[in-house]
Amino acid sequence: MKKTNFRSERMRILVVGGKGTIGQVIVGKLEKKHEVIIAGRTSGDVQVDLTEVASIERMFKKVGHVDAIVNASGAAKFQTIEAMTPEDNLVAVQSKLLGQINLVLIGQHYLLHDGSITLTTGIMKDDPIPGGASAAMANGGVAAFVKSAAIDFTQGIRINCVSPNVLEESYDAYQESFKGFVPVPAERVAMAYVKSIEGKQTGQEYKVY
Amino acid sequence: MKKTNFRSERMRILVVGGKGTIGQVIVGKLEKKHEVIIAGRTSGDVQVDLTEVASIERMFKKVGHVDAIVNASGAAKFQTIEAMTPEDNLVAVQSKLLGQINLVLIGQHYLLHDGSITLTTGIMKDDPIPGGASAAMANGGVAAFVKSAAIDFTQGIRINCVSPNVLEESYDAYQESFKGFVPVPAERVAMAYVKSIEGKQTGQEYKVY
Repeated sequence: MKKTNFRSERMRILVVGGKGTIGQVIVGKLEKKHEVIIAGRTSGDVQVDLTEVASIERMFKKVGHVDAIVNASGAAKFQTIEAMTPEDNLVAVQSKLLGQINLVLIGQHYLLHDGSITLTTGIMKDDPIPGGASAAMANGGVAAFVKSAAIDFTQGIRINCVSPNVLEESYDAYQESFKGFVPVPAERVAMAYVKSIEGKQTGQEYKVY
Repeated sequence: MKKTNFRSERMRILVVGGKGTIGQVIVGKLEKKHEVIIAGRTSGDVQVDLTEVASIERMFKKVGHVDAIVNASGAAKFQTIEAMTPEDNLVAVQSKLLGQINLVLIGQHYLLHDGSITLTTGIMKDDPIPGGASAAMANGGVAAFVKSAAIDFTQGIRINCVSPNVLEESYDAYQESFKGFVPVPAERVAMAYVKSIEGKQTGQEYKVY
């Protein structure tokens, strides 16, 4: 048995949302070994608004080729189904769903051979919370897209997603929405991104529950 | 044990896509016992384009209150991931995903007490086919939305979806895309819609594989 076949070389990695609660911990794990470029709406090394295709294109033109693309950002409106309007639902559609999928569709052309893409879903799709249907929709759409896109890629390109539980770090703010959920540390969630980036699996959804 | 607690009274049921391959079989099963209103883009009793919120609103204003809403329609563009553009993906977003979700968000206000909504997903989200990522995304989004929306509804409103395998009836046309899949008869798929409409379950995805 070979000692390891995880990727061990230095990579160039784009982390969208790298200044967020999960993003910071992912970046902390990656930057010891890799070149990390942080993208954010207002913070980081390069600015991007994932709800706009043109903004994603501009970001990649600035950043150029990378070995890995990670997204740890995404918004959704929480609203009970009986009060939800088609407009309310568009927040998650534009951000968590299409923002991530367009990051794949555009970013794939900036990936080097054997590159990877790692997106973010969330526990609400599997374990619903009140008012969470729009976020769940985006999470479910991304997870199914990842599983399906994985079989199409050639040139060693891989794609996975990470589905975090509510985080210990943000549990104070969210506990009214996540009653009975056992929060997980961002540290543990970040490990799943590392597995996706430095490992060899594809088409997976890593559930950190 | 009571003999049955399935719904046994005559219901008023709206079937969008009721002239399609699955829709016709669903309607055939329902119309012996219930009042069925068929909606379609160009056929049926009332016209609707699910990709337009205003068209859905117009349909419900014409139809009025119903006991059950069923959708057996939805389009997606099949395209390998490496050639897929954000525009390609919008076909499934507007039709299979938002078309169905907006049918829920608008249609819920036209549902009588103990009414139900039954949507349609598809096997590609669980068992990917080449070029199927956009359709899978829509299916996965709808399935997660259904599971989550179900816990929010009050007044006995239920919501489920049916995930059909490729149909025996359309296997000749689609067999190049579904190699190795064992097609199922539309008759068997239609039974799952009846279970959703006349039964009591909610938040389910009936997989007819």
